[in-house]
Amino acid sequence: MIHSLDFSSSMNKHYNQMKKGILFVLIGFACTLKAQEPVHEAQIKTLYHQALTAGKSYDWLDHLSNKIGGRLSGSLNAERAVEWGKNELESLGLDRVYLQNVMVPKWVRGTFEYASIITGPGMSMNVPVCALGGSIATPSSGLRAGVVEVKSFEELERLGKEKIEGKFVFFNRPMPAELINTFEAYSKTVNQRTQGAAKAARLGAVGVIVRSLNLRLDDYPHTGSMRYGDLPNSMRIPAAAISTNGAQLLSSMLALNDDLKFYLKLDCKNFPDVPSHNVVGELKGSEFPDEIIVVGGHLDSWDLGDGSHDDGAGIVQSMEVLRLFKAMNYQPKRTLRVVLYMNEENGLRGGTAYAQHAKQNNEKHIFALESDAGGFSPRGFVFEATSSQFAQIESWKPYLTPYGVARFDLGGSGADIGPLRDDNVVLSGLRPDSQRYFDFHHAANDTFDAINKRELELGAAAMSSLIYLVDQYGF
Amino acid sequence: MIHSLDFSSSMNKHYNQMKKGILFVLIGFACTLKAQEPVHEAQIKTLYHQALTAGKSYDWLDHLSNKIGGRLSGSLNAERAVEWGKNELESLGLDRVYLQNVMVPKWVRGTFEYASIITGPGMSMNVPVCALGGSIATPSSGLRAGVVEVKSFEELERLGKEKIEGKFVFFNRPMPAELINTFEAYSKTVNQRTQGAAKAARLGAVGVIVRSLNLRLDDYPHTGSMRYGDLPNSMRIPAAAISTNGAQLLSSMLALNDDLKFYLKLDCKNFPDVPSHNVVGELKGSEFPDEIIVVGGHLDSWDLGDGSHDDGAGIVQSMEVLRLFKAMNYQPKRTLRVVLYMNEENGLRGGTAYAQHAKQNNEKHIFALESDAGGFSPRGFVFEATSSQFAQIESWKPYLTPYGVARFDLGGSGADIGPLRDDNVVLSGLRPDSQRYFDFHHAANDTFDAINKRELELGAAAMSSLIYLVDQYGF
Repeated sequence: MIHSLDFSSSMNKHYNQMKKGILFVLIGFACTLKAQEPVHEAQIKTLYHQALTAGKSYDWLDHLSNKIGGRLSGSLNAERAVEWGKNELESLGLDRVYLQNVMVPKWVRGTFEYASIITGPGMSMNVPVCALGGSIATPSSGLRAGVVEVKSFEELERLGKEKIEGKFVFFNRPMPAELINTFEAYSKTVNQRTQGAAKAARLGAVGVIVRSLNLRLDDYPHTGSMRYGDLPNSMRIPAAAISTNGAQLLSSMLALNDDLKFYLKLDCKNFPDVPSHNVVGELKGSEFPDEIIVVGGHLDSWDLGDGSHDDGAGIVQSMEVLRLFKAMNYQPKRTLRVVLYMNEENGLRGGTAYAQHAKQNNEKHIFALESDAGGFSPRGFVFEATSSQFAQIESWKPYLTPYGVARFDLGGSGADIGPLRDDNVVLSGLRPDSQRYFDFHHAANDTFDAINKRELELGAAAMSSLIYLVDQYGF
Repeated sequence: MIHSLDFSSSMNKHYNQMKKGILFVLIGFACTLKAQEPVHEAQIKTLYHQALTAGKSYDWLDHLSNKIGGRLSGSLNAERAVEWGKNELESLGLDRVYLQNVMVPKWVRGTFEYASIITGPGMSMNVPVCALGGSIATPSSGLRAGVVEVKSFEELERLGKEKIEGKFVFFNRPMPAELINTFEAYSKTVNQRTQGAAKAARLGAVGVIVRSLNLRLDDYPHTGSMRYGDLPNSMRIPAAAISTNGAQLLSSMLALNDDLKFYLKLDCKNFPDVPSHNVVGELKGSEFPDEIIVVGGHLDSWDLGDGSHDDGAGIVQSMEVLRLFKAMNYQPKRTLRVVLYMNEENGLRGGTAYAQHAKQNNEKHIFALESDAGGFSPRGFVFEATSSQFAQIESWKPYLTPYGVARFDLGGSGADIGPLRDDNVVLSGLRPDSQRYFDFHHAANDTFDAINKRELELGAAAMSSLIYLVDQYGF
């Protein structure tokens, strides 16, 4: 590492050069663009100091991840998380904490997921799979069939019913590694998971195996939502994800023997909707109480890991925003709300319900911020805003660049706040570094140990700073 | 996570809103500032594509970390690393690969490090410690003495000989968590490790225990160099690092009972200098062969872990720069060198020797780049340059911002290239995200599993792009 400061007297020869190096560092810090208002600079510095030295987000996430755990919509854990969120927000002494009722889908993974590649009599290899969320089960004795590997829906259609009927379709298009933004790489491959089963079923496939949406080669299958759409019940087929290593293995085995068989057993099940809740906490505005600023993440998660990155991080960072304001006795001008949305993963019912309530009550939302891209080191924000709104936001950049939050882009903000979208509200999403996110996304390794305390806290501080500026200036 | 693209037909109600969201994302990408020369843009795109889809840095690091391992200067492993580096560079078909002889210090940790807090007869607790590099051993029966905790050298001096004599001094000033740049936090605390023993010895201390330079609370002691300076041999005392959890424990035990005893046993040893080597590889310039551009990291590491971040990452990234140029048949205008420096950690002998050779041979270095800040997601570069040189460098920024490399600062570049510093050469250091670095720095957990493949490759691509631009434009 950089040892400019790491050598004492015996290194005198280099000492003056090193002093020069240190001086450069200090000049570098001093050269940072100055923000306009010293009072805002000072408030933001206090927010960061508090978040990094006396923050609560990490301890909260420890509880949510390790004491509650995975919390799929409709599960007992999801309701435990609702109760926990409500209790914690109440302990902050906010002006109001309440639940919003919402009906959510209930899908249960079951107790048994198993797959193997069968290359001959008595010759088989297990491969790591998991059911995709929403999938039906296989017959209780499992499914055994040949496999057709495809990279795209176009290739699937070209092969047609003749080649597909009675087979598993193996969707094996990898996330493109050359894309810098890993969410862009995800967007180019996720339709295999969401629509693959419906497309393959119409051509007579018996099931689908989807390469996990993971840029890394490893042994974790990654779940996530899939939908049959308007496909009749009788035509629906089971859908499983296979780990990236498993996908590589299956593909190379198929290259040797395209007549091999695949065995899959899933016992997941869809149930009727059940009641659940969004959790809402509020600090009343002192000057413009009717102007609402909302910050949130989603309380539900997939069931394989603890949902620490997706989206425990966003939950505790959003709670931390209001806690920090209380801790520093900051009285907001506008009404600040934190919302812990239910059911982002497989239905978006919470985000939809929140927006419906807002509309029914004629609430005026001016800004909505979502954190749902992992608890990694924050690099910027995206905004859905008019050009004049965005120009105003860009004028705030000098307040955040000293903290490494330097990228403000126009872009899609987040799923849960999407239903609030109209011509008046500015929507925004925190954008942490995206490189590691899909190593953990929807997989059993999305657990608390994958979270770095400082990075989580820096995200909370960045969100707090942005909310502070919106509260000060409005739009 | 952001599921803009993650819902199919049953979500039609939200679909148009989502399309709008996707459109925003694409606009965001398109809005990126355009760089000036399409040919350079294309070359840089090719460098990134190669590094991310067919890169060799990760496999190289796997070998260096897992097949060779920790490689402290003067050790057999360090010589194995030299041989490996030379062989790998030779396999790239460079114009020239050679070793530079350099004498290096040899310090050996020994086989036994042990410490405990003794609170009463038969009552003791083990705490994780390690010897600091360069420390002498304790007597073979260990050292047992009381403990005085201090936070600064000023506090130490105030206490004076009267309070210190016959005791361990426990330096327990934590890295300040509120600083965003963790290297700055390191610079504010590292003197406890480098100079603590010498200062305490002059006041009659029997040994020093230094809080590990780690922002996280955990059980890993972090080693690193310490120096006695001109302190006579007879006055030298043993110096150990204690894990951050151990430091917290010791401090709270002292608050309860300032009469407790500390037991320390180390059997490390200093030996006379031994011969070692820098490894140098070269691609001859086609237009300006006498203008030298150098890129490198340090081949030695501390001995507790594998040195994957410090500085295996910098080594393989530097090698990858030349490999990428060869792979894309890029013929440099200027002479490009990769240097694997020996002995950055406890002597800087390699960097010093390289600069001496350069001077003796009247070589004209125009640019030196070092990667020695971990294999994390790259965020920018620092430069030691004149204002006109820096203005030229800043004009290249639009080539790198699309890759998330957006911060160009003036600042201290790196230890190994420091001895090259003169009025003509521009020095530079890669600056990855610094938040996690000190979780691993100089500790047993600095191992290959702490490296993310994409982040490592992105660093190599960023370095290659910068070197490419310097080669194209010169200064």
